[in-house]
Amino acid sequence: MKELSKIIDEKLSELNFAANKPHELYAPADYVLSLGGKHIRPLFTLLACKLFERDTKDNGENTALPQALGVEIFHNFTLLHDDVMDNASVRRGKPTVHIKWNTGTAILSGDAMLVLAYMQITNAPAEKLPTLLKSFNYTALGVCEGQQYDMNFETKTEVTLSEYMEMIRLKTAVLIAGALDLGAIMGGATENERAVLREYGTNIGLAFQLQDDLLDLYADEKTFGKKIGSDITEKKKTYLYIKALELLQEQNCTQERALLINALQQSDVSTIKTLYGKINVKTCCQKEIENYYGTALAALSELPNNNAKKEIETLTETLLNRNR
Amino acid sequence: MKELSKIIDEKLSELNFAANKPHELYAPADYVLSLGGKHIRPLFTLLACKLFERDTKDNGENTALPQALGVEIFHNFTLLHDDVMDNASVRRGKPTVHIKWNTGTAILSGDAMLVLAYMQITNAPAEKLPTLLKSFNYTALGVCEGQQYDMNFETKTEVTLSEYMEMIRLKTAVLIAGALDLGAIMGGATENERAVLREYGTNIGLAFQLQDDLLDLYADEKTFGKKIGSDITEKKKTYLYIKALELLQEQNCTQERALLINALQQSDVSTIKTLYGKINVKTCCQKEIENYYGTALAALSELPNNNAKKEIETLTETLLNRNR
Repeated sequence: MKELSKIIDEKLSELNFAANKPHELYAPADYVLSLGGKHIRPLFTLLACKLFERDTKDNGENTALPQALGVEIFHNFTLLHDDVMDNASVRRGKPTVHIKWNTGTAILSGDAMLVLAYMQITNAPAEKLPTLLKSFNYTALGVCEGQQYDMNFETKTEVTLSEYMEMIRLKTAVLIAGALDLGAIMGGATENERAVLREYGTNIGLAFQLQDDLLDLYADEKTFGKKIGSDITEKKKTYLYIKALELLQEQNCTQERALLINALQQSDVSTIKTLYGKINVKTCCQKEIENYYGTALAALSELPNNNAKKEIETLTETLLNRNR
Repeated sequence: MKELSKIIDEKLSELNFAANKPHELYAPADYVLSLGGKHIRPLFTLLACKLFERDTKDNGENTALPQALGVEIFHNFTLLHDDVMDNASVRRGKPTVHIKWNTGTAILSGDAMLVLAYMQITNAPAEKLPTLLKSFNYTALGVCEGQQYDMNFETKTEVTLSEYMEMIRLKTAVLIAGALDLGAIMGGATENERAVLREYGTNIGLAFQLQDDLLDLYADEKTFGKKIGSDITEKKKTYLYIKALELLQEQNCTQERALLINALQQSDVSTIKTLYGKINVKTCCQKEIENYYGTALAALSELPNNNAKKEIETLTETLLNRNR
């Protein structure tokens, strides 16, 4: 896995977009791609391809490398534009593109990155292109839809749990499923195998986002790296918040419910944590994560057993913080 | 031609993006596409296809219709994002998307439109896809590069004429050449025929942009529809301005040169018009337009003579305001 991750790193820096002109358009692409990250999505693409190539190609060739790079470029394009929309000034400890350059350049270099992602993803034999395009277009639109729902939720007073799950499915899970799918297409998977693998990707994507919501409040501050409770500071309606509101409603705890709504408006982390503790919303979230993870593993068990599958499992444990 | 334009209008409204959810993501796409315009780019796509189909298909079928729609969606995506970058509040007499909705929605619905453009453009037989993608990716990146140069020029004190011509080639001409090229690919043109048609498109694109610069100051206000001198009000370094600076430099008119630079900073339309009159920069621009138009027509003469070619010529006259 480390070797594959190194290959992705090397190939990304070989792309060297900033060698193109105008510099202001292409330099931000290299900048965001060099900010680091675990390359989980492109690794999924490479491994999904290997899963279906069924060890016939054990010459170390990475058939889905362009698609993997395309997925990483696309993911970073979404981060770049999301940071503009969310007015975020820091990403992975570094200034965001619209801060380091300006908003115009951030919008435009993001647009160029979306084109660059298409160029990589469609770097494949002609007969694969209709399938690759259908898969990637679906993913790309889904991610846009998820981000729009996320923005809508900022001003929406009541968000139901099913609306929230649909938002994170689109915003997060669709891209993980899509990354796996592009690899599966390159590896020659059948329609059914692809559907099963996407099912896996969607479920681990959902588990990942819920885990993210959970860790934001319950992680060990020393090892977490981010500030505890930042979702509350940013007044985000996470799984924990929406579930807590629903539980308090069910239990007719009108007063606590109003208290919680008010506490989010005030970004009052300690009051919220106390309320969550009373109704044990953390356990609900953990159970949901286990559910999605279990569904995912059941799907994966239908697919061929080989080395790539073991690596997909290991990578998923990394994604879900299970391998510490 | 009117019939083809009507087909484009109908098909664009049939796409009915706003029927998809979330509404906030897709409604802006329908909105910008419904603001009107002459559909010159998609008409070029349809006609270029017909030019090479060589009347073999006279059943009224429009082989390149998806590509034509894709070109129009792409063009409107660039207008949408350009309006955010330029902070423009009005487009064709209506509020721009970031004014009517908000900046986040404008960025995101633009992103979705770029994906929707790819979906239309790649709606073609698999064997055509590598060529269509190569052509469109080149166009899309070129347009981004042109817009970045245009933004760079806002803060750059000295812009040379060749830098300016390269900017408008990328920002304007590449898309007209690209629109023609996608049609030519669908019509089965040879590599050489495509190159000749792109040459045509690039040259009429350059002539169009220079004509645009010229009309901004010298059009008949009654029939023009826009305010005279708006490029100067917006402190834009157009062909007229850059050429005037170069002529004044050649003629060692240091004082007038400084006067012109200052007049643009002050958005002083009348002083600029007087200076332009003294050195006859309008005639220089007209000659350049004729040059590019002549080069374009010479290229077109190499291509098959048929009804579609006559319509391409007529459409070009519309684009260049020559058929009044």
